[in-house]
Amino acid sequence: MRKEKYSMLCDFYEFTMANGYFKNGFFNKNVYFDVFFRKVPDNGGFAIAAGLEQVIEYIKELHFDAEDIEYLRSKGIFDERFLEYLADFRFSGDIYAVPEGTPVFPNEPIFTVRAPAIEAQLIETFVLLSLNHQTLIATKANRIVRAAQGKAVIEFGSRRAQGASGAVLGARAAYIGGCVGTACTLTDELYGVPAGGTMAHSWIQMFDSEYEAFKTYCELYPDNPTLLVDTYNTLRSGIPNAIKVFKEVLLPKGLTKCAIRLDSGDISYLSKKARMMLDEAGLTDCKITASNALDEKLIRDLMMQGAKVDTFGVGERLITSSGSPVFGGVYKLVAIENDYGEIEPKIKVSENTAKITNPHFKKVYRYYDNESGKALADELCVFDETVDDSRPHTIFDPNASWKTKTLTNFTARELLVPIFKNGECVYDCPDIAQIASYCREQLELLWDEVKRFENPHTYYVDLSEKLYNIRSILLSVHKISG
Amino acid sequence: MRKEKYSMLCDFYEFTMANGYFKNGFFNKNVYFDVFFRKVPDNGGFAIAAGLEQVIEYIKELHFDAEDIEYLRSKGIFDERFLEYLADFRFSGDIYAVPEGTPVFPNEPIFTVRAPAIEAQLIETFVLLSLNHQTLIATKANRIVRAAQGKAVIEFGSRRAQGASGAVLGARAAYIGGCVGTACTLTDELYGVPAGGTMAHSWIQMFDSEYEAFKTYCELYPDNPTLLVDTYNTLRSGIPNAIKVFKEVLLPKGLTKCAIRLDSGDISYLSKKARMMLDEAGLTDCKITASNALDEKLIRDLMMQGAKVDTFGVGERLITSSGSPVFGGVYKLVAIENDYGEIEPKIKVSENTAKITNPHFKKVYRYYDNESGKALADELCVFDETVDDSRPHTIFDPNASWKTKTLTNFTARELLVPIFKNGECVYDCPDIAQIASYCREQLELLWDEVKRFENPHTYYVDLSEKLYNIRSILLSVHKISG
Repeated sequence: MRKEKYSMLCDFYEFTMANGYFKNGFFNKNVYFDVFFRKVPDNGGFAIAAGLEQVIEYIKELHFDAEDIEYLRSKGIFDERFLEYLADFRFSGDIYAVPEGTPVFPNEPIFTVRAPAIEAQLIETFVLLSLNHQTLIATKANRIVRAAQGKAVIEFGSRRAQGASGAVLGARAAYIGGCVGTACTLTDELYGVPAGGTMAHSWIQMFDSEYEAFKTYCELYPDNPTLLVDTYNTLRSGIPNAIKVFKEVLLPKGLTKCAIRLDSGDISYLSKKARMMLDEAGLTDCKITASNALDEKLIRDLMMQGAKVDTFGVGERLITSSGSPVFGGVYKLVAIENDYGEIEPKIKVSENTAKITNPHFKKVYRYYDNESGKALADELCVFDETVDDSRPHTIFDPNASWKTKTLTNFTARELLVPIFKNGECVYDCPDIAQIASYCREQLELLWDEVKRFENPHTYYVDLSEKLYNIRSILLSVHKISG
Repeated sequence: MRKEKYSMLCDFYEFTMANGYFKNGFFNKNVYFDVFFRKVPDNGGFAIAAGLEQVIEYIKELHFDAEDIEYLRSKGIFDERFLEYLADFRFSGDIYAVPEGTPVFPNEPIFTVRAPAIEAQLIETFVLLSLNHQTLIATKANRIVRAAQGKAVIEFGSRRAQGASGAVLGARAAYIGGCVGTACTLTDELYGVPAGGTMAHSWIQMFDSEYEAFKTYCELYPDNPTLLVDTYNTLRSGIPNAIKVFKEVLLPKGLTKCAIRLDSGDISYLSKKARMMLDEAGLTDCKITASNALDEKLIRDLMMQGAKVDTFGVGERLITSSGSPVFGGVYKLVAIENDYGEIEPKIKVSENTAKITNPHFKKVYRYYDNESGKALADELCVFDETVDDSRPHTIFDPNASWKTKTLTNFTARELLVPIFKNGECVYDCPDIAQIASYCREQLELLWDEVKRFENPHTYYVDLSEKLYNIRSILLSVHKISG
C-alpha cells in the first residue's frame, strides 16, 4: 500500500458521526463501547482472542496528518473546527481487553473502551478489523492443531492470504492458536514466529534430474533437510531418490535427521508406504511432512486412519479460515456518562432476542472449579461489583431468568485487564512465545466437551443478578416506548 | 504492522532455494515463471484480474536492508556471499501481465516473469498474494454487481476483512469489479475509490430519541442524508421518524434527495413497505439502501421478488469472498534459458491431468468475432508466433487433440503487455476509474453464457499447434523417463 498508517482505515461514517458529535456538544461526553461476538466460526465451542497487540500499536500512533486533513476538507462537509480538532487528535480514553491467547465465548466483552464519543467512534473499524481477523485465524489454527493430536502443524498459506497483513499477521495468529511455525519470513523477522521451509517443485525442475536436485540440496543443507518427493512420481521416483541421497550425503557425516514432504496424492496411503520404505532403508529418524488442501476435517480423518505423518503443513484453509472466513465481532455502545459523571447503561434492542446487547460498563469474571481446576462459567457483572469467591455465588442465564447456577469451592479471575488509562498504554505486551504458551495453559482449563468439533457443549456466559435486573428494566422501558 | 516493506513477505524456502541457486551457478540463469489459476471461485465462468499495481510498487521497492540481512544471517544457513548479493539486490528481469480489470480464464498466464532464477524465486509469494487477493475480490464483487442488475453496490466490509490490506485493497478490487464506492476512507484517500457513509446505530443511541438523532443529522448534512431506520422498529418508528424529519428539515430548503437504510429484518418485505410509505408521504426521491448479510445469491432473489432497493451495501461476504475465500493462482516454472541463450520449455507433470502445466514462454491472444464484437476464444502461443487475423486460424484443445476450432472474420488482441523490461517499469498504471471502466467494457464483450452464475459456459482457452506439439513431446519424454 502507498501509505502505511491506519488512522484513516476507518469507515467514512465514523467521520460524519464524529463531526456531528463535535458540533453537538458530545465532544467530551464519555461513552462505553464493547467488542463482543455472537457466534464461533465453524460452529465451534470457543474462540481464541488475538489481535490486541496491533490495536495497541494503532492506538499509540493514531493521528491525522496534513494530507489526511486535506483529504477530509476536500469532501466539503466537515466543519473547519472539527478538522482543526482532528489535526491535534490523540486517543485519551481507557481500554480494557482480554489478553491475547485467552479462550473467549459468545456475548462477553473481549474489549471495552471508555472515551469521549468522537474518539470511541473513530477507532471502531480498526479495532474490529484487527480483533476479528486475528481471532478468526487463531481460532481456526487451534481447531487444526487439536485435530492433529500432538503432531506439529506449520502455517503455509501466505500466497493465498487475503492481502499482506492477512499473510503476516495471520501467521502470527496461527502461532498463538498453536502452530509451531510458519513459512512466512516476515512474520519471523517482525514477531519471532519461527519460519522454515525448504524447496518448491521449481527447485527440482531446475536440475537435470530429481536425484541431482536432492543431492545438491542435502549437500547445501545437511542439517535436517526436507525433500519434496512428488514432482515426478512419489513412490517410484521421489522416495527412492530421497533415500539414496540421505544415505549418500547424510549418513557418512553421522547425520540422521531429515524429512520428506508429500504434497499431492492420498496422504494416508502414501505416508504409510513412505514410512515403510524409509524404515526398511534404516531411515527411522526421517520424518514425514504432509501438505495439500489440509484442514481440521481432513487431518482428523487422516489421524483416524493411522496416517504416518509427523508434521502437517496447512495453507489456504488455515490462512483464510476457508470454511468460515468471517469472525463477526461487533462494536456496540453499552453506556454513556451523563453531565454529572454518572454511567447510564444503554441497550440495543432487536426483534431477534439473540441480538439484544448486554448493557453497561462491565467486568467479566471467569470461575474455575477448585477441585478439577477447570473453567466452570464466565459471569458479566456491573463494573462496581466484586465477587467474593470464598462464598457460594449464584449467576443468571441472560435469556431465561429461572435458569440460575450456584457455584461453590471456586476461584474467580477477572478477564478484562487495563490496556490504556487516560490515553497512556499501561500494558506490557507479552512476546509471542509467552502468548502461545498462555493459550496452551488456558486451553488445558477448558473441559473437553467445550473443545469438541461437532456440537460442542455451550459454555456458560451468565449475568450477575444486578446486571440481569438492569437489563430487564432497560428492556421493559424499550417495550413501553417501542 | 511494525515494518511496512514487503521484501521479506516471502516464503522461507525462497531464501533457501535462492541461496542454493547462488552457490550452484544458477546465478544468472534466466528462467520463466507463469502465474495462472485452474478454477474460478464460486464455480464462476471467469475471473477479473486485479492486484497488478501493488505488484509493480513491490517490485520497484524490492530490496533487503541491513536488518533483513542480519535476520537472515542469524539463521546460520546462508552463505555470506549470498547475503552480500542480497544487500545489493534489485529486480533486473522482465514482466508481462494482463492489465487490471481484464476478464481472465483458467489455465492461461495472467502474469509472466523472465528473470535470473534467484530473482524470479524471491518474488513468488508477494506476486501470488497480491494477484490472488485482489483477483478474488474483484471477481466476487462483479458477481454481486451482476446480481444487482444495474442497482448500485457499495462495499461495506472493512471491519470483517482479513487484515488491513484485506480491507483497503479489497475495497480497491471491489471497485474494479464494479462497486460504485466503499465505506473505507483510506481506500478513497489512497486510491480514489469514492468513500461514503452516514451513521451507525450508536449515533441514534447517543440521543434521547430516534427523532432527535435523525433531525440533528439532517440539519448537519442536508445534502442527500441517509438515515438508518432499524434501531428500534423499522416500520413503526424508523421510517415514520425519517419521513417526519425529511419533511421538516429538507423540504423547506427545497431539498428532496435523501435515503433510508434497512439493516435488519426481511429486506424484500420491508423495502416494499418502505417504498409505499415514502411514496405516500410524497418522498418519491427518497432512495432505499439495504444491507445485512447480502451476497449475490440473496440479491438475485431479492431482485426476483421485486424488492424496492436502490443501493445494496455489501459487507463481509464481499470483502472475504465468503463462499469461496481462496483464489488459487499458482506460480510455475515454464522455461529455462540454457547456456547458449536458447529457451528450453519446462513442464510440470502430474497424475491429475488438469494439473499438468502449459510449458514455455508464451503469448496469449484473445480473439473477437468481427460481427458480434464478442470474445470467441483465447489462444496460448509460443512467444515467437504471430497470428494473422486476416486469415482463417485453427486452435487446439490442450487436453483433446481432435478438438479443434477454426476462426474466421475475427480480430486478435494480445492480452499480456510489458510491465518491466530489464528491471525498469515500462507501464503506466491507469487510474482506478479507468481500470473500472475498462473492466466494464471488456465484460460487455463476453457472451452472457459465460457470465451465468450456475453452470456457465466454458470459454475456450486453446493452444496453438506449435505449443500443442511442444507440450505433447515434453509429456511423452516424461512418460518415458517417469
